[in-house]
Amino acid sequence: MSTIDLNSDVGESFGNWTMGDDAAIFESVSSANVACGFHAGDPSTIKQTCKDAVAKNITIGAHVAYRDLAGFGRRFLDCSPQELADDVLYQIGALEAMARAVGGTIKYVKPHGALYNTIVHHEAHAQAVVDAVKASGLELPLLLLPGSVALAKAEQAGLRAVAEAFADRAYTPEGTLVSRREPGAVLHDSAEVARNMVRLATTGKIIAIDGSEIDMPAESICVHGDTAGAVEMARQVRTALEDAGVTIKAFA
Amino acid sequence: MSTIDLNSDVGESFGNWTMGDDAAIFESVSSANVACGFHAGDPSTIKQTCKDAVAKNITIGAHVAYRDLAGFGRRFLDCSPQELADDVLYQIGALEAMARAVGGTIKYVKPHGALYNTIVHHEAHAQAVVDAVKASGLELPLLLLPGSVALAKAEQAGLRAVAEAFADRAYTPEGTLVSRREPGAVLHDSAEVARNMVRLATTGKIIAIDGSEIDMPAESICVHGDTAGAVEMARQVRTALEDAGVTIKAFA
Amino acid sequence: MSTIDLNSDVGESFGNWTMGDDAAIFESVSSANVACGFHAGDPSTIKQTCKDAVAKNITIGAHVAYRDLAGFGRRFLDCSPQELADDVLYQIGALEAMARAVGGTIKYVKPHGALYNTIVHHEAHAQAVVDAVKASGLELPLLLLPGSVALAKAEQAGLRAVAEAFADRAYTPEGTLVSRREPGAVLHDSAEVARNMVRLATTGKIIAIDGSEIDMPAESICVHGDTAGAVEMARQVRTALEDAGVTIKAFA
Amino acid sequence: MSTIDLNSDVGESFGNWTMGDDAAIFESVSSANVACGFHAGDPSTIKQTCKDAVAKNITIGAHVAYRDLAGFGRRFLDCSPQELADDVLYQIGALEAMARAVGGTIKYVKPHGALYNTIVHHEAHAQAVVDAVKASGLELPLLLLPGSVALAKAEQAGLRAVAEAFADRAYTPEGTLVSRREPGAVLHDSAEVARNMVRLATTGKIIAIDGSEIDMPAESICVHGDTAGAVEMARQVRTALEDAGVTIKAFA
Repeated sequence: MSTIDLNSDVGESFGNWTMGDDAAIFESVSSANVACGFHAGDPSTIKQTCKDAVAKNITIGAHVAYRDLAGFGRRFLDCSPQELADDVLYQIGALEAMARAVGGTIKYVKPHGALYNTIVHHEAHAQAVVDAVKASGLELPLLLLPGSVALAKAEQAGLRAVAEAFADRAYTPEGTLVSRREPGAVLHDSAEVARNMVRLATTGKIIAIDGSEIDMPAESICVHGDTAGAVEMARQVRTALEDAGVTIKAFA
Repeated sequence: MSTIDLNSDVGESFGNWTMGDDAAIFESVSSANVACGFHAGDPSTIKQTCKDAVAKNITIGAHVAYRDLAGFGRRFLDCSPQELADDVLYQIGALEAMARAVGGTIKYVKPHGALYNTIVHHEAHAQAVVDAVKASGLELPLLLLPGSVALAKAEQAGLRAVAEAFADRAYTPEGTLVSRREPGAVLHDSAEVARNMVRLATTGKIIAIDGSEIDMPAESICVHGDTAGAVEMARQVRTALEDAGVTIKAFA
Repeated sequence: MSTIDLNSDVGESFGNWTMGDDAAIFESVSSANVACGFHAGDPSTIKQTCKDAVAKNITIGAHVAYRDLAGFGRRFLDCSPQELADDVLYQIGALEAMARAVGGTIKYVKPHGALYNTIVHHEAHAQAVVDAVKASGLELPLLLLPGSVALAKAEQAGLRAVAEAFADRAYTPEGTLVSRREPGAVLHDSAEVARNMVRLATTGKIIAIDGSEIDMPAESICVHGDTAGAVEMARQVRTALEDAGVTIKAFA
Repeated sequence: MSTIDLNSDVGESFGNWTMGDDAAIFESVSSANVACGFHAGDPSTIKQTCKDAVAKNITIGAHVAYRDLAGFGRRFLDCSPQELADDVLYQIGALEAMARAVGGTIKYVKPHGALYNTIVHHEAHAQAVVDAVKASGLELPLLLLPGSVALAKAEQAGLRAVAEAFADRAYTPEGTLVSRREPGAVLHDSAEVARNMVRLATTGKIIAIDGSEIDMPAESICVHGDTAGAVEMARQVRTALEDAGVTIKAFA
């Protein structure tokens, strides 16, 4: 019987601003990437999000980011590796205290936004993230893009590296994401997305943008909760997986 | 033989801005109130400060504050008790991760600046700080002003509450701090200050501003490292205490 | 023929977070209180909001606030009068540059949130806001609560002080706002609200919570755009005013 | 008779943190690059700095930066050109209000730190800075590195572009700065620096790191005030220039 994880970004409200429908997406996912305060997530939001995740038996991950509230962590920041490692460790610690306070604990780390994309290729920042996770002493797995430089560095450091697939993104025949600048990069047909994710969970393969079937070595599927459409797509993906006999289960 | 603790605020640099001479004050103190990022202290500063404290065998405390970098945590912020409790817990968690990464751990909590002063009388904020410490699960003692409302609340919550005296501040005959708006509130004569602190450590009494001897139930003495004069005063206090046979030892 | 102003808070998005439906509320108001970056409003949001206001021929006001993004400016911050005056002047200058860049200009200042409420009674902060407006050299009117200490201080300083009424708030027979802690403080019946605002515009009186008719010396009515219901109420207030022959016109 | 400008970064304190000895450097310079709050400079610091500059008859320039207090604006931030243009305009407006309030006005713009270095080559960010200056309507000259892409773009946009030389930096025979990673990049011999700056002011040439004489088309010399040594070097440069009959005069 197949098993796969569904993860989503949550806890991204900040003060008076809300972001996403965390309650709705919690109906579908098994892992919650919880914002840690550097791109989003004030302490009260973070704690409540952890509390809700614990109540729903959803695994908590640290969604660490560059220090950039104004840019929501979506802008590359050319900080030194030391600064980055310390910023990431700070975020892990803050989130861990919040999670523990509500009976949970962090089980993995997933870098956010520009940091996630940067460490696909940026050796020094990739190493900094790995160093921070090591420094935390929590031996946490890292959730990353397949082929990410950070993935190799995590394994070199003795950390578990877990690859994820994006439910709503098209893939090239080579298995990389179709750039958002290209037409068809983002998928909107929930039924098709759901079918592709069932294929992934049951065969380890997906259909690329050219119709070819390719290997996708992902243990987790990333879904979104920031729009009503995204929440509905996540729900359909989960239902299709369950209908196909796939067990939805946190990887960590 | 008498024993007393000497504590000081450290780790208050931020990015390119430096504050205080932490290396110098580390020669005198037994406890380090380390900034946690909300009033001062970027993650790299915090980690380095913890590392230096560990190397010097100085006990690490969390110097938690209102979220106010621009005001250095010296301005009352009328946040809700829930926001405050969560902000404090976030800071404790972040610092704990930094301390652990360098082989240390947090041993106590000392509120900073406006938060320290506010919880002398503000019931809800005092309770919020106590709640945060309890929520951390670390069972940390709180270092506070004698007579602080927070002190009573800490004890009610089963936490150890430790009172401190300020080496460079004059006291009224009633044992409260002479307001900074009054003449003579801040003491500059290091020799006199040192004598008074030896009196405190050996007899539990100090000389108040009117010359009377009063009880001062303090287990720790707060000294400063933000000016050359303050560092020198701290050094003289330590030397005088040691010369008087007092053991300088962290309370936690 | 009667004339009245309708004002609303806008430009309160920040980075990736959105707040309110500014486009919708712009259909109803004559004056726009534009966030200046200290409680909300990143520079791009601010400029776009000013551009939209200019296109709609809506008067721009500076919605100045305490420096508190995490609290959305809704928490009293005990800054010094000098700090506050300088913070407010900084915000006015930043907004003025944005407004000018799109062919507009600031025509008034309305303090936001906790600052608005604080200067009803806080002499030093009220004076600081007035000082900042004077220092700007723009001779801007201040939009305030009737009876606010800041209103008197503005007039003493030679500035025009304009009182406003809140469409969706109940008033005591004494003409003060019913506290939000009391039942009935916030009004939800759009038709009743619209009738009361027509009464205000045509007779200078409103019906208080006890049914009595009281004087309300307001030249502007504050409506909201942060919920669909608020936008609809604003639309109904405007329609009712127009149907009653009242001219909706900016006070500044 | 020759004329040259001496400029320095000032107003870089923030809240409780101080940076540089502005009073001392004001004895030497004719132009003050005043921080605008995004990399340094709280509103009270900014206003006081402008006041001091006005009192000393020193020309005020806007030292605009990426939004990065934690990194002091020294880290490249990959914001969109629109965000950057709006951030820069916001800073110009805020500073202009401060300058006007104390009887001054902004006379030029000098990008700071990473922004200064980035727009030497980054077309989109260079254009964004130029666009912001144009949008301000103040027709301000830009103070830049010779050869900067931003310099060409400023001139294309009809703005005056002024090149500056760095007193304490070594130059390659090609007229570019010797990288800080190379030995000898930073000059410490005040007498030699002063001689070279006299040569610049009187002949338009400087001695490069290899001893060759090269053209240096600079109308301004950048000196520093952040260390005692830097302040003393600035003083010696000024004295040497005056002794050589060069008039120290703001370029704007």
